[in-house]
Amino acid sequence: MVDQPDTKTEVRFDCTGTATGKMRNDLDVRMVKPWAETFTLATDEGPFHGGDATAPPPLALFVGGLVGCLMTQIRAFAKRLRITVHALQVDARIRWEWTPEPNKLYSTAPKGFELDITLDSDADETRVKELIAAAKRGCFLEQTLGRANVITHRLKTADGWTDV
Amino acid sequence: MVDQPDTKTEVRFDCTGTATGKMRNDLDVRMVKPWAETFTLATDEGPFHGGDATAPPPLALFVGGLVGCLMTQIRAFAKRLRITVHALQVDARIRWEWTPEPNKLYSTAPKGFELDITLDSDADETRVKELIAAAKRGCFLEQTLGRANVITHRLKTADGWTDV
Repeated sequence: MVDQPDTKTEVRFDCTGTATGKMRNDLDVRMVKPWAETFTLATDEGPFHGGDATAPPPLALFVGGLVGCLMTQIRAFAKRLRITVHALQVDARIRWEWTPEPNKLYSTAPKGFELDITLDSDADETRVKELIAAAKRGCFLEQTLGRANVITHRLKTADGWTDV
Repeated sequence: MVDQPDTKTEVRFDCTGTATGKMRNDLDVRMVKPWAETFTLATDEGPFHGGDATAPPPLALFVGGLVGCLMTQIRAFAKRLRITVHALQVDARIRWEWTPEPNKLYSTAPKGFELDITLDSDADETRVKELIAAAKRGCFLEQTLGRANVITHRLKTADGWTDV
């Protein structure tokens, strides 16, 4: 176990995605703060987008990451709160709305995020609920989805980076 | 290629996460609408959370999914807009703030999402910018992160599911 920081700390992930196959993206993901680790991932698409299905689609990574993040937080905080976890399962239903636009384009919007938690513990229900409340506060992705985030984009041009 | 729907359509992913190793989560991710596909994923943690690092951490899946989603949308919409894409790379910097709380708990908050796009195309800059604007509207994860989402949780109890 690594000791956790006792002051506010930045957690930063960088990623370089490179388009390789017809629709495959190879993704070099690097945790750079507070310490360095690297992870090699990929996404691809199936017949709908004309891909070769050599890797899961981006939404599968997202859904798995969200569920995994809450589960990590529940088990990590259970240790700290001395709550036993004999077994843990989370069932999620994540929904979006897909709206066709002219020229065969489309827009998308999120519709619902439902997470059902099955936790086998010796602790009483009150303590388990405290654990889940703490896990929600500690879950990076739950906290991210709960607010309107600004995503900034830059495009490389002959004159340098331009905001898009 | 599969024809795309010409009316509003729900896109739904379900996921069953099962805690297996010390901190490993096995994730059965299922696209259930508008058609069915399944994907097997996993997350794990390294020494900080006492895991065995048998799989990437949840945040790596999230970051890879976000970058992959935008890249998929850029290439998918380039075809529809008849814009050539000779090469595409996206470099992302994703930051969170980690704040210690009593009892070695912590809370988290998103700090920044920066995506740099390098696109080699015969199209002029105006058309490339139109492509990126369309891709942002079509990117499920970009649209999700851009608004405050409500995530609902239920806990299984002896009396059935209860909201938590």
